[in-house]
Formats: sequence, structure tokens, C-alpha cells
Amino acid sequence: MYDATSPVPDEHTDAEVLVVWGNPRGQLTDSATRLTRLRWIQALAAGPDVILAAGFAPEVRVTSGRSLHDGPVAEHTLALALTAVRRLDLMHDAQRSGRWARELGGVQSARPSTFPGLGTLNGAEVTIWGFGSIGQRLAPLLTALGANVVGVATTPGTRAGVPVIAAEGLPARLAETDILIGILPATPATAHAISADVLTQLPAHAWVINVGRGATLDEDALDHALRSGTLAGAALDVFDREPLPDGSLLWTTPNLIITPHAAGGRPQGAEALIKKNLAAYLAGEPLLNLVER
Amino acid sequence: MYDATSPVPDEHTDAEVLVVWGNPRGQLTDSATRLTRLRWIQALAAGPDVILAAGFAPEVRVTSGRSLHDGPVAEHTLALALTAVRRLDLMHDAQRSGRWARELGGVQSARPSTFPGLGTLNGAEVTIWGFGSIGQRLAPLLTALGANVVGVATTPGTRAGVPVIAAEGLPARLAETDILIGILPATPATAHAISADVLTQLPAHAWVINVGRGATLDEDALDHALRSGTLAGAALDVFDREPLPDGSLLWTTPNLIITPHAAGGRPQGAEALIKKNLAAYLAGEPLLNLVER
Ligand SMILES: NC(=O)c1ccc[n+]([C@@H]2O[C@H](COP(=O)([O-])OP(=O)(O)OC[C@H]3O[C@@H](n4cnc5c(N)ncnc54)[C@H](OP(=O)(O)O)[C@@H]3O)[C@@H](O)[C@H]2O)c1
Ligand SMILES: NC(=O)c1ccc[n+]([C@@H]2O[C@H](COP(=O)([O-])OP(=O)(O)OC[C@H]3O[C@@H](n4cnc5c(N)ncnc54)[C@H](OP(=O)(O)O)[C@@H]3O)[C@@H](O)[C@H]2O)c1
Repeated sequence: MYDATSPVPDEHTDAEVLVVWGNPRGQLTDSATRLTRLRWIQALAAGPDVILAAGFAPEVRVTSGRSLHDGPVAEHTLALALTAVRRLDLMHDAQRSGRWARELGGVQSARPSTFPGLGTLNGAEVTIWGFGSIGQRLAPLLTALGANVVGVATTPGTRAGVPVIAAEGLPARLAETDILIGILPATPATAHAISADVLTQLPAHAWVINVGRGATLDEDALDHALRSGTLAGAALDVFDREPLPDGSLLWTTPNLIITPHAAGGRPQGAEALIKKNLAAYLAGEPLLNLVER
Repeated sequence: MYDATSPVPDEHTDAEVLVVWGNPRGQLTDSATRLTRLRWIQALAAGPDVILAAGFAPEVRVTSGRSLHDGPVAEHTLALALTAVRRLDLMHDAQRSGRWARELGGVQSARPSTFPGLGTLNGAEVTIWGFGSIGQRLAPLLTALGANVVGVATTPGTRAGVPVIAAEGLPARLAETDILIGILPATPATAHAISADVLTQLPAHAWVINVGRGATLDEDALDHALRSGTLAGAALDVFDREPLPDGSLLWTTPNLIITPHAAGGRPQGAEALIKKNLAAYLAGEPLLNLVER
């Protein structure tokens, strides 16, 4: 155990292995310089982008916390999708002003044009861009509520019983998507994947949810689409800059739901992963969740 | 087709069958007096309490819209349960004041004592009081997220693979309940079922969700429990008086989420039910969803 928010104490700079969880950027760049005997970093976060950017020597292997966050992130994403279709955000605003939101309750038809949202996940076309460990946990939860799910990954096929498309298939799928969910890692290839162009291809009643990384979505384009009404709504858990700065445009974007990078943050089964990987490390065997660098 | 919000026109007061959906109380009491040849009412609402209270002659059979609302009500209830454990209500309040809710995001432990809620449905003990058509649709959705579900009905046993207890089992179960979900019909026996006494038996970290009928919950007792902190939170979709009156105490109750009777309201498969029951009616066969009067 060490304090992840302070520089590693001098007597431990000979460490060969470092477990990283919630370490701020500065602590990591400091460790990259001072831990000269380091050989392996076990991250507990699913996305190792912050570690990869910290300047560790190329021979330091990095393993991620992939799979430790599947349950929590899938749960939060489902909560955002339900908030979106049920417009719990608007109901909450009405409650805060002591107003019964008559227009959102009582007798409704299944998809009335006046209802400001989809109304239900039942029958909704949901596209999950980044169909890895988390996406595959999320898909059956959406399916159980009647949604039709399609995944997007680097190669097409069927994964966990769900049809998966690659980049070529995206334009056709976006045009029929009710809810686009981003669960992409931050890599050079995914920067602003959810671009102005992608947003334009979605129907005007569509929602965008992003729980991957802020860098994978063009925030200015999203703000513009929401303000101009070419997109119905969005829910973001991750941002280009976190915490989202005071005075950011996004604080006042209409039909935008903001959660403070709250999807994961509770690794499940971290001890077991560390033990397994430590045994493999000591035995010189392949490590689980090894990240390509 | 008739306008359900106005009195039935004179030329139709000889109707033998009336389909009822969203009719206000006054329209129903008027119909009870003027439709003297009425023999059968098909309600599209799952709860026929409003019709039963309208004064129709005892020989008028009433069939409910039981099952037409299972999907929508289960979906909304799940949305409320996720909002509760994830505290999306507090995140929304923070967003509205342009504040990043640091205390609700980032690195968390699974159930930290400082987190103002349960954090997750995974491992939560959920008790569904009123384990009929809707409850049985809801249970597997909660189970898929890792919750342990117990139903409460008039007789104990196992239904749809879920353990069900009756009144005798309630005290022991309440003491270990994290989330109590009410999906009870309004009947003389269920009036204020969720009473001050029941609320006292729940742990202080527990949440109460009610989507059944307002009459089944003691609102004053709930308000008191939330204000005094003996209960962590509640989400209500149904109320003693709807719309919830201006100036009701509940508008300012802390840790209370209010939705405007928005769970159902979108009957699924109503035409098929009406057709089946009409054929049965004409053939003199037993009607589906017949309500005991
Ligand atoms: N909000 C939070 O609190 C939170 C918590 C945990 C994780 N996350 C984020 O979620 C990300 C995903 O986590 P995970 O565990 O599901 O990761 P994962 O199992 O590695 O899955 C990543 C998925 O993204 C796909 N992908 C990567 N680059 C792509 C590209 N250029 N085009 C199309 N698809 C691409 C991968 O496709 P292939 O399968 O074809 O390679 C894979 O399906 C993490 O990297 C992290 O940034 C956020
Ligand atoms: N918020 C909304 O928009 C909305 C929409 C639709 C319905 N609702 C409400 O939800 C209610 C339930 O709907 P449903 O379709 O699930 O009805 P249901 O299939 O008739 O189920 C009712 C359940 O309540 C149980 N119950 C009744 N009286 C009880 C008592 N005194 N003690 C313990 N359990 C009791 C029944 O037990 P047994 O099975 O043992 O008889 C049954 O399990 C409706 O009556 C309606 O008021 C609300």
C-alpha cells in the first residue's frame, strides 16, 4: 500500500511492480522518472491512456483493469439510457420547481411526437461503439428491455450473440440508430470518433451517450447539434477535461445530462486479478490484460 | 371510439360494453348513471380502482388492463431504482448549478459510508411488495444487475423462480431490505400498507420506491422518515392526490424523487386483449382479467 496521490517515497523507488489506481498525472510522471527499476504496471482502471501518456520507459509492461469495471459501467450506462428515454431529467427539473410535469405523465401513446424523447427502450435501435468487455456486459441488459443492439468494433462479426459491424458499416447503421453509446478507449485512432459528421448522420430524435473517454467525442460539435436541435439529447460521463471546467459551454447545453465520471470507479475483483498476474509475472508467464504500446 | 373526457353522447347511452382509458372520475360516475344497459367494462389501466369507485351497478363486469403495462412500468421502476442507487438526482442538481459533483464520481469503494446511497444494485436486497404481473416482469431485470429479489403477495411460495413471502414473513425481510418496491393495487386491504411502522422496520440506508397506487403508502410517514433521516431516500410515481397539489409537503422532502404517474400510460397490446375478450363476451365464455367486485 502506498499513497497514490503523493510521490512514491524514496525507500520504494526500487520497486519492480507498481499497482496504479486513481494516481494523478503528476504522480505518474514523477514515478516514470524515479522508479528506474520498474518492469510492470498493473492498472486498475480499464483505460490505460493516462499511464501510457506518463512517459514510462518502453520496457515497462502495462496491464489494464479491463473487466473490473464491466458491471458498474454497464449499470451506469443503463441508468443514463433509461433517464434519456424516460426523460427523468425533465421530471427532476419540474420537481425542483414544484411542478407536476403533466406533459410527461398520465395517458401517453407509445411514441407520441410531442413526447420529448423516445419514451422507452423497447424497440429502440441501440448502437454500442466500442464493443469490448463493458459493451458485451451492457448488451443483454438493453436486450432484456426490448432494445435491438448492434456493436461496433475494429472487425465485424458476431460477439456474445450480438451483430458487430466495423467502420464500413457505420453510415448505414447511424441512420437507423435511436441511441448511440460510446464505450471507446482513448487512442490515436478513436480521437473525436464521435465527430460532427457522425452526429449529422444520426436521426434528429437520437440520443448520444458517452462513457468511454472524453477524447473520443467532439464536444463542440455535440453542443452545436444539441443547441440547433439536430440531435435530441446526450448524456456524458466523460469529458475532454475533467473535472469539466467552470464556465464550460456544456454546463448550459440543452438536453444534456452530465455525470461526473461516475460510471466506474469501483473495481470489482481487483485482488484476484493482481494475484493472478503477480503469479504469472513471477513465473515468467504471459500477463492478463497486457496493453499494446 | 368516443371522447373519454366528455360524457358519452345520448345516442350511445344504450352501449352494452365500454372500453375505458384515461376517463376522468366525473366521466365515469356520469356513465354509471346514464349507461343503463351496460354489462361489461374493459379497462386498459392495470388498476381498476377508479372504475370500481365510480358506482357502476353490481352486475356490470369489469376486466382490467392487467399485463398491458408490464413492460413500461417495469422499465420505469428500474429507471427509478438505478437513479436511486447511482444518485443521478444529486448529480442533476449539481449539473444545474454548474458544479462537478466530485463527491459522486471518480475513485470510489464499493459501498463507502460517505456515498449518499447504495452505489449499485449489485448485491442489493430488493423486496417487491405486490408480486403480480408487473413485479414478475421487473424481477429478472433487477436480478440481471446482481440484485437479490424477494416478492411479497397474499400467499407465500415461489413464483417465476423468485421466492415470495406473505405478511408473516415481512418483518424479517424488511430488516434486511435495501430497496422496497411497492407495486400494490389500491384495495381496502392495501390502504397505507407502506406505513410508518413498515418504514421504521427498514434499515436507515434503505430506499422506498412506489409505482403501485398512492393510497398504499402513508405519505406523511414517508415525509417524516426522510426529513428525520431514518430512511435514505424514496422515489414515488403515484400519490394520494394526483396531480400532487401545489404546496404539498412532498415537493420539498429531501432525498425524494417525484415522477408524474409516468410509469405506465402506454398500454401494449390493448387491441389484442379487447378482441379476445369481445369474442369471449359474445360467446358467453369467461373473460380475461376479470376483477373481483
Ligand atoms: N466512465 C468510466 O467510469 C469508465 C470506466 C471504465 C472504463 N471506461 C472506458 O471504457 C473503455 C472501454 O473499456 P472496455 O473494458 O470495454 O475495453 P475493451 O474490452 O478493450 O473494449 C474496447 C472496444 O473498443 C473497440 N475499439 C477500439 N478502438 C477502436 C476503433 N478505432 N474503432 C472501432 N472500435 C474500436 C475494440 O474493438 P476490438 O474488440 O475489435 O479491438 C473493443 O471492442 C476503456 O478504455 C475506458 O476508457 C470508462
Ligand atoms: N404507476 C403506474 O403508471 C401504474 C401502471 C400500471 C399499474 N399500476 C399499479 O400497479 C398495480 C399492480 O399491477 P399488476 O398488473 O402487477 O397487478 P396484479 O398482477 O394483479 O398483481 C398485484 C399483486 O399485488 C398482490 N397483492 C394484492 N393485495 C395484496 C395484499 N393485501 N397483500 C399482499 N399482496 C397483495 C397480489 O398478490 P396475489 O398474487 O397473491 O393475489 C399480486 O401479487 C395495479 O393495480 C396498479 O394500481 C401503476
